Amino acid sequence: MQSRVAACPDLMSGCDEAPALNNHIIKSPLKLTYIFIILFLVLNHLQGQNQPAYHKLMPKPQNLTVHEGRFVLDADFLVVIPEKSSRRVQIAATKFIRRLTNRTGLFVQNGFPVFDQHFSQAGIIVHYQRVGKLRLNEDESYKIQITANQVMIQAPTDIGVVFAFETLLQLLDNDKDTYFFQNLSITDKPAFTWRGLMIDASRHFEPVGVIKRNLDAMLVAKMNTFHWHLSDDQGFRVEIKKYPQLIQKASDGQYYTQAQIKDIVQYASDRGIRVIPEIDVPGHATALVTAFPEIASQKQNYRLERNAGIFDPTLDPTNPKTYEVLDQIFKELSKLFPFEYMHIGGDENRGKQWNNNADIQTFMKHKNIKSNHELQTYFNVKLQKILNKYHKKLMGWEEIRTKQMPKTALIHVWRGKAGESLVKTVKNGYNAVLSNGFYIDLMLPAASHYKTQLIPNKANLTPEEKSRILGGEATMWGELVTPLTIDSRIWPRTLAIGERLWTNPEKIDIDKMYQRLFTQSYHLEELGIAHIKNRDVILRNITQNQDISSLQLLSRLYEPLKGYTRNKGGTEYQTYSPFMLFADACTADAPDALYFNRLVKSYLQSHAVKDKRAIVSCLKRWKDNHHKLMSLRPNPKLVTLYPMSASLADLSQSMMRISHNLEDIDTAFVKKLNTQYQKALYKYNDVELPLANSLKALINDWLSDKGLDGIRK
Amino acid sequence: MQSRVAACPDLMSGCDEAPALNNHIIKSPLKLTYIFIILFLVLNHLQGQNQPAYHKLMPKPQNLTVHEGRFVLDADFLVVIPEKSSRRVQIAATKFIRRLTNRTGLFVQNGFPVFDQHFSQAGIIVHYQRVGKLRLNEDESYKIQITANQVMIQAPTDIGVVFAFETLLQLLDNDKDTYFFQNLSITDKPAFTWRGLMIDASRHFEPVGVIKRNLDAMLVAKMNTFHWHLSDDQGFRVEIKKYPQLIQKASDGQYYTQAQIKDIVQYASDRGIRVIPEIDVPGHATALVTAFPEIASQKQNYRLERNAGIFDPTLDPTNPKTYEVLDQIFKELSKLFPFEYMHIGGDENRGKQWNNNADIQTFMKHKNIKSNHELQTYFNVKLQKILNKYHKKLMGWEEIRTKQMPKTALIHVWRGKAGESLVKTVKNGYNAVLSNGFYIDLMLPAASHYKTQLIPNKANLTPEEKSRILGGEATMWGELVTPLTIDSRIWPRTLAIGERLWTNPEKIDIDKMYQRLFTQSYHLEELGIAHIKNRDVILRNITQNQDISSLQLLSRLYEPLKGYTRNKGGTEYQTYSPFMLFADACTADAPDALYFNRLVKSYLQSHAVKDKRAIVSCLKRWKDNHHKLMSLRPNPKLVTLYPMSASLADLSQSMMRISHNLEDIDTAFVKKLNTQYQKALYKYNDVELPLANSLKALINDWLSDKGLDGIRK
Repeated sequence: MQSRVAACPDLMSGCDEAPALNNHIIKSPLKLTYIFIILFLVLNHLQGQNQPAYHKLMPKPQNLTVHEGRFVLDADFLVVIPEKSSRRVQIAATKFIRRLTNRTGLFVQNGFPVFDQHFSQAGIIVHYQRVGKLRLNEDESYKIQITANQVMIQAPTDIGVVFAFETLLQLLDNDKDTYFFQNLSITDKPAFTWRGLMIDASRHFEPVGVIKRNLDAMLVAKMNTFHWHLSDDQGFRVEIKKYPQLIQKASDGQYYTQAQIKDIVQYASDRGIRVIPEIDVPGHATALVTAFPEIASQKQNYRLERNAGIFDPTLDPTNPKTYEVLDQIFKELSKLFPFEYMHIGGDENRGKQWNNNADIQTFMKHKNIKSNHELQTYFNVKLQKILNKYHKKLMGWEEIRTKQMPKTALIHVWRGKAGESLVKTVKNGYNAVLSNGFYIDLMLPAASHYKTQLIPNKANLTPEEKSRILGGEATMWGELVTPLTIDSRIWPRTLAIGERLWTNPEKIDIDKMYQRLFTQSYHLEELGIAHIKNRDVILRNITQNQDISSLQLLSRLYEPLKGYTRNKGGTEYQTYSPFMLFADACTADAPDALYFNRLVKSYLQSHAVKDKRAIVSCLKRWKDNHHKLMSLRPNPKLVTLYPMSASLADLSQSMMRISHNLEDIDTAFVKKLNTQYQKALYKYNDVELPLANSLKALINDWLSDKGLDGIRK
Repeated sequence: MQSRVAACPDLMSGCDEAPALNNHIIKSPLKLTYIFIILFLVLNHLQGQNQPAYHKLMPKPQNLTVHEGRFVLDADFLVVIPEKSSRRVQIAATKFIRRLTNRTGLFVQNGFPVFDQHFSQAGIIVHYQRVGKLRLNEDESYKIQITANQVMIQAPTDIGVVFAFETLLQLLDNDKDTYFFQNLSITDKPAFTWRGLMIDASRHFEPVGVIKRNLDAMLVAKMNTFHWHLSDDQGFRVEIKKYPQLIQKASDGQYYTQAQIKDIVQYASDRGIRVIPEIDVPGHATALVTAFPEIASQKQNYRLERNAGIFDPTLDPTNPKTYEVLDQIFKELSKLFPFEYMHIGGDENRGKQWNNNADIQTFMKHKNIKSNHELQTYFNVKLQKILNKYHKKLMGWEEIRTKQMPKTALIHVWRGKAGESLVKTVKNGYNAVLSNGFYIDLMLPAASHYKTQLIPNKANLTPEEKSRILGGEATMWGELVTPLTIDSRIWPRTLAIGERLWTNPEKIDIDKMYQRLFTQSYHLEELGIAHIKNRDVILRNITQNQDISSLQLLSRLYEPLKGYTRNKGGTEYQTYSPFMLFADACTADAPDALYFNRLVKSYLQSHAVKDKRAIVSCLKRWKDNHHKLMSLRPNPKLVTLYPMSASLADLSQSMMRISHNLEDIDTAFVKKLNTQYQKALYKYNDVELPLANSLKALINDWLSDKGLDGIRK
């Protein structure tokens, strides 16, 4: 049966950001448009659309003072840069103009920056002292001063200029008639010198274009370190000229040529980003031993790994040939990567092949090496010598942190409880980079990463120890991502990590963080980031190009399974499995779920009628949506979504009945409701409905009026 | 006032392809879903969704015979290729499996082709005789034989195998439960040996990723020649090692390195595609003379051209240095491009600089050269000698066709009335490639390109003359396209050109062509072609990430201005102008316009009530849509769309009044209606409403009942 429910115009009237439109909506005679307007209001809510642009900056600058007045952007504006500006500034200024042009639609008179310091038009003026170096603790600070006729950017290095342009783009504001920058002053600098994004190009290869657009997006997040995971069990991805067999045997033809590496390193450098390559050894070495079986700890033929997980193939640390191969690899890499550090991996070596190899056991006894961990240290120390030869410092995952490891090694912390391992690392005298808390492949909400403290509160670190915490890195492990989906796994959540690393705010406001996150998120599209648009590509694929609106609704509500539960045991998906599934169209922080959970929270606090109406309106949409889905011509891929959609529709319908206080709500009904609730929360299609607490609380609240038990447990 | 109009369920009931769903829709209680379902029905209509896949092939194969039965695709299917298969076959087979996997969602057991000819599972078996060469008239034929347990691909060359895989992907069909291939036999081969796509990377640079994804899409269209326009007034886009100044001074930093060129040529070769580079001389030479002012016909400093059009800078044919530079360029290019032809441009030299240069005039007198055209021939003949030195043949735009030009030159026909120039060319003994009729930058409907006859009917060509027509090329000139929009200008229309060149059908059915076109169009998304998804990127940009549904509707109805009227005089847009405007979100063959025009045609023939209801339903949507648009928070870019949207809404509302036979329809009303009609057809925002004839005919038909005059003129 159909119940009359409140229409949508009231949906958001309890929300600070939305009411500006209510008048219009109420006046509108168009009932049919309401359903579209809901989507708009959710966007509006999540972005705080009506706030000035300077409230939407992400990362927040360290200091911002707002003044009266505006710098109005007309088509004749100039960007004025110093004569003989660095390549970095010229590129940044030109890209700035191009992005501004495309955002505003202004037919600018000057498509390129000018060098003339004597000008009469309104201008954006750039000053900097020197070319920045891509090294630790380089000065990346900048100042922006906006007055009615001038935007002044000042920075000690050209890297600061690059970041200032990003801030300025975020400051672009408009009313109905003009684009403008609010007059204000910003002085800004990063809290940490290591603000990284790791991309795993081994599990799934990511072409040059994917890397480049993500480098552009890193700038938006004011990140400065690209960590390139180039070797793992599933593939060795970089051409080594002396060993053509590496890419012939161990890459499936998917690798970066040295010319491409140089191109990307230059591209990164133009953006103030340093690049650190990782060759993960001695474990995670299946690809290496597929090309060089003779340096494995167990002599056999190897094939590239197609599953995910931790595998046995491990380099033989007792074999001189092992070091010969690694020496050559790092030699060639050291010419390609100017950054001072190289990453040797070092994680997750279980030592099974070492245990089973009698020669290795004999070697250990002979050298008085008491454990596999000590043997790995033996290996690492030899590796460090190789790196030193090529004037590189060693970075590795935290397993390399042993007594014998020199303090010059940079420790990449990724395990254990928050802060513990990090504290131990810096108390032991090592510099550290934190990734524990920044594992974006876990598909956790942005808020969870945002809350990660770089410097643990309770740790009582000395200033010196604190200074050893260089920063952090978001890690995009590649088991379940392809070029089609990787952007939606990195962005927008990495913007929150970027703010943690640049601003490192003491006080945080999660709701406002999300507003800023969603605002900056869609701007990433202008860089080619495909996190939004590729969702619909997948949905068109699933529906075979029928109307995707029913799937859009579901994909805005469900989230991919978290942790590593999507690929249980690492064997459900192979590298060649389909990754155009419904789960691939879903993202962490499903926007409609975020919205609904907040709505329920608000309702349970105040029991406002307007909140209830909005809730029931959502339930009605979810119920109705199933009809829409079922009206599509079926295909096997689509059919797998029916049970999920039906379970949501069934529960929604029952909840609508409760909300309308129908008379037949009795214990039998509640029993059925419990079953429906369980079904709705079942993890279909590798996704989950992140509404469990809200739905349960709502049901129990509503049923308590009737003296009925609600959802058990 | 609001009029009651027929709801949408009847919208498509007069359409062959749609009725299967009507029952369900009528049963559905959800009025709100109707509006979504309209979109779906339009898609459905345009794709003929319920037809078997073998009716959707594009290009159509030369011979197809359908048999009883199916080859059912299970997760354990194998692709079996010969041992020591060519790189081309291995790549094609692997990509075939990957695309099949992502389309079906099957967790395939074998992610790679196998070489074992002795297998027990259901298999797709590939046989071929030899590695194909990337030369004219190479054998590209193939056969496919599908039976219940086997799909057999046979081809003389591995290039035929590559095309066979594309056909097979288009043959993938499904019911609710399974994916399958209908049992059938295909024997297929191309009508023409030159099936090309030209991309102009000079006016706007197109990065490697754009080129690669378009090479992949060319395969879908069974095209085999990529013509790369690398040099023009706006930029010289290829690194010449001996002349670093070329890219330093004449590329704005946007160029292909030689390593990238090699990579793309290899990528093309892996797909059976040959690549022909074009260096456009002696005109279109602003970029060249920006780097080498000394070889211009007028000595001055030059800067890269930012406008579009035909410009004066022209190489000096009397200067030995001119040939020295070109010799070096073609020398380096000849090492990068193995294909036998090189394109020297040669078009649109107005000779103004030659006329004004006294030395050149003296030279002409001295050598008895009587016209600029003869002087250009003098230049071309010297160029041909250079190319011969590097074992290359010369191709050029039709202006090079002069008496003195050797018959070995390949003439690229692009001007004049249909067929005339082509006939003249082949009657004069030259081989010819036709682009006249295939200028996709003109934004004409696919049908117009599809109708272009390669061999003109009336021309009375001898068989030998006919054989000189090698084929044709779609030309994507780049003045108004960027990496964001180029795909939507090339695709899907180039699929129609592909069919003209591969199948060259005698009888054509435009409606069915469009069904097949739209079906294959969305599959292009799996190759990364961004023609569909980037529309919404632009609309999100325009709305600042508000609800885009109102703009989606408009962008499905309006088309970019045709011919060269969008950029009048070539000076409205500069290379750095914004290309994220509403016009950039629109495409030729606007789908809702196609649908409406057909609906009106059908209605005017039969005056069926259901057609009228559907028409009024469209008018109501267009009227209502304006309210939705106006409910968005305004910004300057969005505000420019108000007059256009209002004009459509006003006319729609008036037409609804006529349709409902309201009493106040009088001469005053008709006068107002004429004004509204004119306003609705005004060319706002560089787009046009391609409904003029339909709307006028409809109005006049409706008003004739009342004895009123309709739209004048």
